[in-house]
Amino acid sequence: MKFVRFEMKDVCGIRQGLLTSVGINEISGDIFNTWKYTGETYLEDQVQLLSPIKPNQIIGIGANFVADKKDLPENTPEMPVFFFKSLSSVTGPESEIKIPDSIEEVKFESEIAVVIGKEAAKIKEENVNDYIFGYTVGNDVTAPQYFHEDGHWTIGKSFNTFTPLGPVIETDFDPSTASIVAIHNGTKKQDSKTDLMIVSIKKMISYLSNVMTLMPGDVILTGSPIGAEFLKDSDEIECRIEGIGSLKNSVIKMKNSTPV
Amino acid sequence: MKFVRFEMKDVCGIRQGLLTSVGINEISGDIFNTWKYTGETYLEDQVQLLSPIKPNQIIGIGANFVADKKDLPENTPEMPVFFFKSLSSVTGPESEIKIPDSIEEVKFESEIAVVIGKEAAKIKEENVNDYIFGYTVGNDVTAPQYFHEDGHWTIGKSFNTFTPLGPVIETDFDPSTASIVAIHNGTKKQDSKTDLMIVSIKKMISYLSNVMTLMPGDVILTGSPIGAEFLKDSDEIECRIEGIGSLKNSVIKMKNSTPV
Repeated sequence: MKFVRFEMKDVCGIRQGLLTSVGINEISGDIFNTWKYTGETYLEDQVQLLSPIKPNQIIGIGANFVADKKDLPENTPEMPVFFFKSLSSVTGPESEIKIPDSIEEVKFESEIAVVIGKEAAKIKEENVNDYIFGYTVGNDVTAPQYFHEDGHWTIGKSFNTFTPLGPVIETDFDPSTASIVAIHNGTKKQDSKTDLMIVSIKKMISYLSNVMTLMPGDVILTGSPIGAEFLKDSDEIECRIEGIGSLKNSVIKMKNSTPV
Repeated sequence: MKFVRFEMKDVCGIRQGLLTSVGINEISGDIFNTWKYTGETYLEDQVQLLSPIKPNQIIGIGANFVADKKDLPENTPEMPVFFFKSLSSVTGPESEIKIPDSIEEVKFESEIAVVIGKEAAKIKEENVNDYIFGYTVGNDVTAPQYFHEDGHWTIGKSFNTFTPLGPVIETDFDPSTASIVAIHNGTKKQDSKTDLMIVSIKKMISYLSNVMTLMPGDVILTGSPIGAEFLKDSDEIECRIEGIGSLKNSVIKMKNSTPV
């Protein structure tokens, strides 16, 4: 099933629905608990899709892909690089990624985003799938210019609009053979299968759940393949994962806003 | 006013109230918008106080105090060290700080915690107070053993129970002359006024609001004075800020849980 959030032109309020081949069937309720069809249906071009989830918290993993299988380390790192992103960094499909006015470029990073569906504490790798609600496409937009020299990525990952998510949460998706693609102004720049991941999705979620209790709505950005590049004003970026969908965003350079 | 959250022994549900010198007047509603008295009152010893806020997100600042005024840098750092803490790290007064079973000790850090009350984007230092709902006491418990060698503090700050908050959110509090104190097993270990802060509360909130839109319920941990030390099994730690209150927690070493 493909869960979406959307709004209607000229009508207030955020709605939820299931995307099918013919349109969107509106639902109401809590997607993680009980929900029901409202009976309303919409055509996709009648609505503006939003981020399919308003995350509870957003956690990313750094430097999690190699270029070639022969580069995979024999042992996964004892402690992977994890970071949080701000909640206000979330934006939806077809929206604008805003480059802060103090810099000229930001990096795109196409990623599989896991949506946690159940409270998850101290779970084993083999049980991780029981806690995953579904998957969406994430663009972990990054301003390395705002990485702190002592290694903290907090600010460089957290500007508003730096986490496009969407277009859907796909509940029927197997990440084990998925390709993660980024297309920058029409040119393919990232294209790797998940077998080039250093820390597997199961391993990273098990690890995190042994530190903190993960909750429904937590979103885990699982790392970006080799090939991420920089975006500038007026660029177009598409992050595509077959089996989930295409997340397309345009880029705009902020001007005349208060500099940080 | 002193806002609290609490639960009653043997009664389900989390309640909100205002702590007065004679007890707790229960309220219902959204403390950031509209709330009203329910008419119920409780004595403090009838209830278990909880963290006075269930944060929307938790942001901390690192290395923000000097030992002596003469050590204050002439210019504040261009980019302070900011980090997020997990939402599940929150715990309340009188609760236990749990040391992960893979280590023996964790650090305490007594801090003023700011509770944001209004959506705050690109605010100037002189307007920061308009966006602050109130202040509580925070203990930014830390396991430096889980700091990543490349500088990321995410895991070392995010274990469950690593952010005691409480006992109240005080709306009538002036941080400019406040003392931040920690008492470890009865011995005072931290005691500094906010004039030893490197990045002021106004400056850090203005900075953050120029990166991300802060929201009601966001909690900013504003840094800990010189003197933080380590806690081990069975220790008692009190973080005290005159004008807000005393946040007391005991420490327990986890055993037989799944190692990270």
